[in-house]
Amino acid sequence: MNIGIVGLGLIGGSLGLDLLAAAPNDNYVWGISRSPKTCKQAEAIASVNIASPNIEDIPNQILEQTDIVVICTPIAAILPTIAALSPKLPAKIIITDVGSVKELIVEPASEICKKYNQRFVGSHPMAGTSFQGIAAAEPNLFRDRPCVITSNDDIAAVEKVRSLWESVGMRIYECLPEEHDRAVAMISHAPVMISASLIAACQKQEDQRVLQLAQNLASSGFRDTSRVGGGNPELGRLMAEYNQEAILRSLQEYQLSLQLTIDLIKNKQWEELELFLADTQRDRPLYVP
Amino acid sequence: MNIGIVGLGLIGGSLGLDLLAAAPNDNYVWGISRSPKTCKQAEAIASVNIASPNIEDIPNQILEQTDIVVICTPIAAILPTIAALSPKLPAKIIITDVGSVKELIVEPASEICKKYNQRFVGSHPMAGTSFQGIAAAEPNLFRDRPCVITSNDDIAAVEKVRSLWESVGMRIYECLPEEHDRAVAMISHAPVMISASLIAACQKQEDQRVLQLAQNLASSGFRDTSRVGGGNPELGRLMAEYNQEAILRSLQEYQLSLQLTIDLIKNKQWEELELFLADTQRDRPLYVP
Repeated sequence: MNIGIVGLGLIGGSLGLDLLAAAPNDNYVWGISRSPKTCKQAEAIASVNIASPNIEDIPNQILEQTDIVVICTPIAAILPTIAALSPKLPAKIIITDVGSVKELIVEPASEICKKYNQRFVGSHPMAGTSFQGIAAAEPNLFRDRPCVITSNDDIAAVEKVRSLWESVGMRIYECLPEEHDRAVAMISHAPVMISASLIAACQKQEDQRVLQLAQNLASSGFRDTSRVGGGNPELGRLMAEYNQEAILRSLQEYQLSLQLTIDLIKNKQWEELELFLADTQRDRPLYVP
Repeated sequence: MNIGIVGLGLIGGSLGLDLLAAAPNDNYVWGISRSPKTCKQAEAIASVNIASPNIEDIPNQILEQTDIVVICTPIAAILPTIAALSPKLPAKIIITDVGSVKELIVEPASEICKKYNQRFVGSHPMAGTSFQGIAAAEPNLFRDRPCVITSNDDIAAVEKVRSLWESVGMRIYECLPEEHDRAVAMISHAPVMISASLIAACQKQEDQRVLQLAQNLASSGFRDTSRVGGGNPELGRLMAEYNQEAILRSLQEYQLSLQLTIDLIKNKQWEELELFLADTQRDRPLYVP
């Protein structure tokens, strides 16, 4: 395959690494990054065969043979990047992205692509580390991790995108953009807000002795429950901004659950509380075996 | 020191192991367990010098020389155990416990001890694994972990209990029983309910495709946020039952925090949401460095 990667950070850089490591003779990878230094670094670690800040520097012959262009920029840059690049890419080409929300991306991206007789399929490869940038790129980042691709009437395009992510070892789930957004709101975006609210609530403790004691006694339970709430604030803001409706639905459903739990405790329904906790103990492995 | 351990499970068994390993000639440990098999096992792994289901089997001379008796039973058995044993223990002896709540234990336990001219100091050594029983006992379980001991006018008794836990490597925090209960409600008990409510909310998803997708896509974020909510239901019930008031306070404070977070998202206050998440990112290391 001939692949273009736009945005050579952790995801884009790691994708190139795996593609070239797997089939150095069969795969060709070109890359685009705003930073000339990043382009050089990506070439140096064999994440791309060639990279440049300007698509004009990618030989026309290579662009013509490109199967898929993967937009690996931050979420806010996905649509502007497609709008800027589509006119310079050949017709029929397939464009995909790696954004963590799909409904606000897939429809407008498809509209842009249609204008140029190109095809868009949304992707969300769910892989990462806590590091960023080309220096953080690593082999096998995607292996055995889930990847969502969005359904499309153009079955050939969907299959091509599926085979791209499968070639780096991902488990593929195909669904509608709004199904993706509701599912990730439940298990990824809402938990960030739930977890952050725990940290904020603890910090509101006015009794300084109790606050200090809580900080001294906190251990693995607090560490785990608060982890995603202590993550990158910009990412948290972006997921809320781009997936507002589904996150609000999840958080409202969560408020109802929490109120029921509180009522059991308030009413001293200890048997019912134990049954409730036995249910959550039983159900958790459905999500994380 | 001459130590009695009542309840030879993970905590009691591990405590005996460390005491005897540290000073096999200076420390003497006797144990009580309802199960004769557990007593034999505790002797076999050198967690105790001698153990029996009946305190009558512990030689009187050893009982007379005992410095501290540590009640390591499940929380519901602590007070009945002290009530049953106190009449058979010498005057002046110090009794402590390992219960994860303190207000409902310390006052009545102190009352019982007073009757026999004995001294009670509450302890909460915050150490453990996900296993139970004498077979799970392990060396160094307590090393570098926090231990709360409750303040008392009898400074000599407090110092003795402090030196016991320090001798197995714990960091000691002395406070009032209600301060302990409010702090652990914040960072340990309330998070169990917050985490369990997340699992319950997800399971209420009625769209089967979205539910299935959420279960397939859940990864480290969900794993961590849901971990304590998928734990032992009986333990969760007991912490709520014995620390009801403080847990309810913490959960109500949490509901306010969560509502503020939801309002930021509902009102599209993205800058404020990012600042809020920057605060929680900054504050989390105060609890878990």
